[in-house]
Amino acid sequence: MLDIKALFKLCYGVCIVSSKKDAKFNGCIVSTVFQLTPEPPTVAVSVNTDCLTHECISESGFFTVSILSQAAAKSFIGWWGFRSGRDVDKFAKVKYKIGQTGIPIILDNTVAFLETEVDRAIELGSHTLFIARILACGTLDDYTEPMTYSYYRDIKHGRTPKTAATYVKEKSQSRLEKEAEL
Amino acid sequence: MLDIKALFKLCYGVCIVSSKKDAKFNGCIVSTVFQLTPEPPTVAVSVNTDCLTHECISESGFFTVSILSQAAAKSFIGWWGFRSGRDVDKFAKVKYKIGQTGIPIILDNTVAFLETEVDRAIELGSHTLFIARILACGTLDDYTEPMTYSYYRDIKHGRTPKTAATYVKEKSQSRLEKEAEL
Repeated sequence: MLDIKALFKLCYGVCIVSSKKDAKFNGCIVSTVFQLTPEPPTVAVSVNTDCLTHECISESGFFTVSILSQAAAKSFIGWWGFRSGRDVDKFAKVKYKIGQTGIPIILDNTVAFLETEVDRAIELGSHTLFIARILACGTLDDYTEPMTYSYYRDIKHGRTPKTAATYVKEKSQSRLEKEAEL
Repeated sequence: MLDIKALFKLCYGVCIVSSKKDAKFNGCIVSTVFQLTPEPPTVAVSVNTDCLTHECISESGFFTVSILSQAAAKSFIGWWGFRSGRDVDKFAKVKYKIGQTGIPIILDNTVAFLETEVDRAIELGSHTLFIARILACGTLDDYTEPMTYSYYRDIKHGRTPKTAATYVKEKSQSRLEKEAEL
């Protein structure tokens, strides 16, 4: 039996993964950034192949991870999770700094960042798993808790984009999709 | 700059990954089980190559994930995280049931489980990333919160085994290692 809601019990943080293509920046929300090895410090992220950010990472070979704070509004998360960089410039109205790899680090509503270089890309059908070496990382806010996926879903009543690794199709989700204003 | 404490801001759940070798079961604590794709539902886990559980998964091709509850005592986590199945039978004093793949699902202090079959093993030096298809999953306790790594570290004052993907060597960690009674 696949009682897929069991997967809700896996805990994740909510992050914005950013990269660039030519001179244009883009980023999207993910809930699947995780450390793979301590030495050398490597992380992995699963990104949907339909996302513009996927195109950016594949092309540049670099991405940053901006770890969201619990204080981030639903509308802020919606901006990164439910819009495409093909339609809007997601970096137009956000505070950021350019990291050492030339990729932006988001400074609004974030608690920490990682700057990474892709080492391997594992094709998984709908998603690619990017395995990357951490070149630099740092704390941005030591006083606010990081946003967890369960906090976003249960406390903020946030929904999940269809492109997410953690997307679950169910009645209540469809209803939320229609009702939500992001 | 590598301010490695930034990695503490990544959120994880704490799980026991179990498998078997010949007729013997073994399991260990991990904080890096994450969903990769929604359809088909796949997950990945990073396991240290020194662990007996790594040997078991490599040999059997199957593992289960038992997602820990916030109610789990530090001593329970220590039993799974700081002992080797080469020295003790970790399943001797725990309640479990055998899943459809022949691998045990732990029923003490858990909120949900996954039963998986390994699809690919990605060598990462000290660790192997096992990518696996979920064959079955279910909820065991819908009333207790899952244990997060930050809850274990900050509230339970738990320490991290050297074999963990998230291990950070630092003064306070070493001190905790000496002081902790598990």
